[in-house]
Amino acid sequence: MTQHAIHGIVAYTITPFAADGTPDLDALGKSIDRMIDAGVHAIAPLGSTGEGAYLSQDEWSAVAERSVQAVAGRVPTVVSVSDLTTANAVSRAKQAEAFGADAVMVLPASYWKLSDAEIIAHYQVIGDAIGVPIMLYNNPAVSGIDLSVDLILKIVDAVDNVTMVKESTGDVQRMHQLYLRTEGRLPFYNGSNPLALEAFGAGAVGWCTAAANLIPQQNIALYDAARGGRLTEARDSFYAQLPLLDFILKGGLPKTIKAGLDMTGLPVGAPRAPVQPLDAAGCARLAEILAAVH
Amino acid sequence: MTQHAIHGIVAYTITPFAADGTPDLDALGKSIDRMIDAGVHAIAPLGSTGEGAYLSQDEWSAVAERSVQAVAGRVPTVVSVSDLTTANAVSRAKQAEAFGADAVMVLPASYWKLSDAEIIAHYQVIGDAIGVPIMLYNNPAVSGIDLSVDLILKIVDAVDNVTMVKESTGDVQRMHQLYLRTEGRLPFYNGSNPLALEAFGAGAVGWCTAAANLIPQQNIALYDAARGGRLTEARDSFYAQLPLLDFILKGGLPKTIKAGLDMTGLPVGAPRAPVQPLDAAGCARLAEILAAVH
Amino acid sequence: MTQHAIHGIVAYTITPFAADGTPDLDALGKSIDRMIDAGVHAIAPLGSTGEGAYLSQDEWSAVAERSVQAVAGRVPTVVSVSDLTTANAVSRAKQAEAFGADAVMVLPASYWKLSDAEIIAHYQVIGDAIGVPIMLYNNPAVSGIDLSVDLILKIVDAVDNVTMVKESTGDVQRMHQLYLRTEGRLPFYNGSNPLALEAFGAGAVGWCTAAANLIPQQNIALYDAARGGRLTEARDSFYAQLPLLDFILKGGLPKTIKAGLDMTGLPVGAPRAPVQPLDAAGCARLAEILAAVH
Amino acid sequence: MTQHAIHGIVAYTITPFAADGTPDLDALGKSIDRMIDAGVHAIAPLGSTGEGAYLSQDEWSAVAERSVQAVAGRVPTVVSVSDLTTANAVSRAKQAEAFGADAVMVLPASYWKLSDAEIIAHYQVIGDAIGVPIMLYNNPAVSGIDLSVDLILKIVDAVDNVTMVKESTGDVQRMHQLYLRTEGRLPFYNGSNPLALEAFGAGAVGWCTAAANLIPQQNIALYDAARGGRLTEARDSFYAQLPLLDFILKGGLPKTIKAGLDMTGLPVGAPRAPVQPLDAAGCARLAEILAAVH
Repeated sequence: MTQHAIHGIVAYTITPFAADGTPDLDALGKSIDRMIDAGVHAIAPLGSTGEGAYLSQDEWSAVAERSVQAVAGRVPTVVSVSDLTTANAVSRAKQAEAFGADAVMVLPASYWKLSDAEIIAHYQVIGDAIGVPIMLYNNPAVSGIDLSVDLILKIVDAVDNVTMVKESTGDVQRMHQLYLRTEGRLPFYNGSNPLALEAFGAGAVGWCTAAANLIPQQNIALYDAARGGRLTEARDSFYAQLPLLDFILKGGLPKTIKAGLDMTGLPVGAPRAPVQPLDAAGCARLAEILAAVH
Repeated sequence: MTQHAIHGIVAYTITPFAADGTPDLDALGKSIDRMIDAGVHAIAPLGSTGEGAYLSQDEWSAVAERSVQAVAGRVPTVVSVSDLTTANAVSRAKQAEAFGADAVMVLPASYWKLSDAEIIAHYQVIGDAIGVPIMLYNNPAVSGIDLSVDLILKIVDAVDNVTMVKESTGDVQRMHQLYLRTEGRLPFYNGSNPLALEAFGAGAVGWCTAAANLIPQQNIALYDAARGGRLTEARDSFYAQLPLLDFILKGGLPKTIKAGLDMTGLPVGAPRAPVQPLDAAGCARLAEILAAVH
Repeated sequence: MTQHAIHGIVAYTITPFAADGTPDLDALGKSIDRMIDAGVHAIAPLGSTGEGAYLSQDEWSAVAERSVQAVAGRVPTVVSVSDLTTANAVSRAKQAEAFGADAVMVLPASYWKLSDAEIIAHYQVIGDAIGVPIMLYNNPAVSGIDLSVDLILKIVDAVDNVTMVKESTGDVQRMHQLYLRTEGRLPFYNGSNPLALEAFGAGAVGWCTAAANLIPQQNIALYDAARGGRLTEARDSFYAQLPLLDFILKGGLPKTIKAGLDMTGLPVGAPRAPVQPLDAAGCARLAEILAAVH
Repeated sequence: MTQHAIHGIVAYTITPFAADGTPDLDALGKSIDRMIDAGVHAIAPLGSTGEGAYLSQDEWSAVAERSVQAVAGRVPTVVSVSDLTTANAVSRAKQAEAFGADAVMVLPASYWKLSDAEIIAHYQVIGDAIGVPIMLYNNPAVSGIDLSVDLILKIVDAVDNVTMVKESTGDVQRMHQLYLRTEGRLPFYNGSNPLALEAFGAGAVGWCTAAANLIPQQNIALYDAARGGRLTEARDSFYAQLPLLDFILKGGLPKTIKAGLDMTGLPVGAPRAPVQPLDAAGCARLAEILAAVH
């Protein structure tokens, strides 16, 4: 693994809500400080974990702006700007750039299934509107669209500032193909938590994870071992944190990460309805898992 | 089939856009008049076909209001009020009721997968906020959530004004179970165009379809034959219109229906990006199919 | 529906086993008599229900011969001759023809996935070896291979004596395509019990079913109503027998049908291990369902 | 990874056929010598690659006996004894033991889907009949049955001599669960070629592969690097052989491995129909890939 500008542990932020349901920007800043202090390598606001899809336009803008300010250049910031319409995605991308984001992340969110040509055009229009790099994000479980490796490579070829790929299918064969077909030159990032060991094994330069809100040292230790080529150490590190990674995947990131932050002394409120807070049994299990990891 | 308040051909509207990209409410009114004049039994604005998910809140309200006004009580109106957050879905449901809708349709749109309890609560909160009936809508291909027959029946039991079910999985076995387990008492509607014959066979009281923008007489003829118990006539009617039903399903409803309306003298503009207009080859094929149906 | 040589209720036989585990040919003959006396339109030995895949070569031959003898020309006999190797399938097809079968049924059983060319060649070699018609059988759930409508039509074109298609995917859209693309001229048969109503609606000329061992009158009544174009009567008949059709599908045909025959006075032994007899709870449920149907 | 009796590269044999279609036992012996001379750690006859399912009982016995003789105790032999009926699987397992096999491999081959209880009983009966260990084999793509991790662990608990698990779903999460839930104590083997790197990463003690017929040194090098904890070396080794691993997976093992053996000077004949030999384009591609690997 060569070291790219954006690499290592790319930490997703949650979006805290105050008691009145509005974004709690102070708590947001604290959660960012925590992760940077722990040593994560980049911050990624407003992704799936950040409930970006559940915010109004004004809320989205306020959270994006405050996130970049809170990071304050200590590490790179990658703001997710996905939206159902191309026009809104462009608007968000331009805002993120204006706020000072180092890169933007774009998932082709869909209601109606999109053709390859429509997806390429979506990235092209966004790419043309901004001057910062785009991390293409493939996650069919939330977007409803699965970008094949063929299509991803077409987009990378067609759109100059699509320079990074985040793969979240959980299928390591996609990473193999990205690696083989670009001879290892296209930086790709893992977005599937329980695949963290294998993704680094397959050559991923980074791991985009919300787990860094709860166990940043462990995440970083796995990255360091893998980057150093120490397989046995990486495996041990991975298995030690896997119960937490499985738990947050199955439970849903906003509700489990928010519950975990509350437990560790940073109240961030509930996810937005219809998503509900983690229930009592889930909280008890999460506490056990966290205790075992630490 | 007994005759429910809402039955027969429940026609989806498209949302026309003017050259400047804003909703064209006059064209919307004309498209509604066309279908009611042809004899459809109900109008359903702002569904999947109506690009409801792609509109701003203000646009949504304007389209909902105008739709109900245009129908003017000639047939029942069922407004789709689905939204990612419960709060917005409630807001839309209340608006629809205030505008005069006879019922609302609710799809549990999702980004994060929802538990059964979260889905039930979503319907409960919406149901409590309004006084008109709710048509529950199951369409995993667009919502990302598949409501089992068990869950649907739980919701129908738990929420008083969920009184109708629209099933769009395309799996006729779901309809069999809805029928068997309620002894035929729960009115269900078909939302899968190429299943129109089988759905009526299985006891569906209505067919929610965007095809009524293009071939309302044929849709109505199929319903009449099925309702009259005339299987051979229903089969012949179905096979005559099936090429169109397959085409609009595979091509995507907004782009194919809008292209078809343009061809038949009612310009309604393009779908909103990233969805693009039907391409030239698609238009040629659609013209052939329409000519063959008529 | 025009009336083909093979049409209506095509009844699958089970293969009874004696206490010592060998085929009980007398019980086989009785089970065939029962169904013919009840009025079924054809007999289909050694299909999935008949545990053809679980028999030795000698057992297979004995069961095939006795089945044709027992039918004795009262109705057509369609013997399933599927085997993993082409050579064995040819051998079985020739035996079936020699015994006097009116047609053979061929499922492309597979261990290694087959290419389209390999599947076509398989049918071609079998077709060349015999002088009776072949019913092509598509059932990916048991064979591991799903024949697309395109491929089925290619085989029908390429192999002269493939003249009938049995579709068992349970997806009525396959039947729509078979009907539309051959303008209703290719006789197709339904092999998915809970799709019986829809298949006849879509134009199937026959229903291949093991249910005829237990409820032949009801199966025939559904066929008669559908063939007569009486939709309401067909629907009522279908829903009355659907609980049994669902039960035998979910429970597995050999074990549920054998249990049902035992209950109705014709002891036929257990299925061959690893398949086990229906358990006590299953038998109790089956008895209830049978009582309700009658 | 601790070193189990059976570990490292477990090499599948093909079953060569002479010009008259009968098994060519001399060629079989040569193919086994080649792999043992190259350093593989165990030999596995009559698996999927060995076309075990396509052989008559007599052929199966002859191939099993000769395989064990040819290995002659130089490395352990694991004979696949899977069959559709429990009785035949028991018969094969006893024969394999009598011939001197060190272990047997059992895939729950199915036609009718089996319940958990039926699968457990199948393993129990086989286990009771023999005195050598059983490697449980999960491969839903060929068997039609997917054994969950829960069920696998139940079988391991219930049947004393089921002591090893071969996982071929290609889903590395299954291996994670096997590892986590047994605290690394249950030896598991990888049967999915393109997952070889990740499986060793996750703690697999062996890799069952037909690739060892063609590139045994490369397979062994990957195992050695992984076992030594040298991740970077393992990754480079893996990517160098991945094009071949992908090719044989997609092309089907018997036909691609047999073509490769022919190319490298060991004629082994064609696979048994309906499977056909690799076509000319496939052979050309395989030659290129082999040249690039070496």
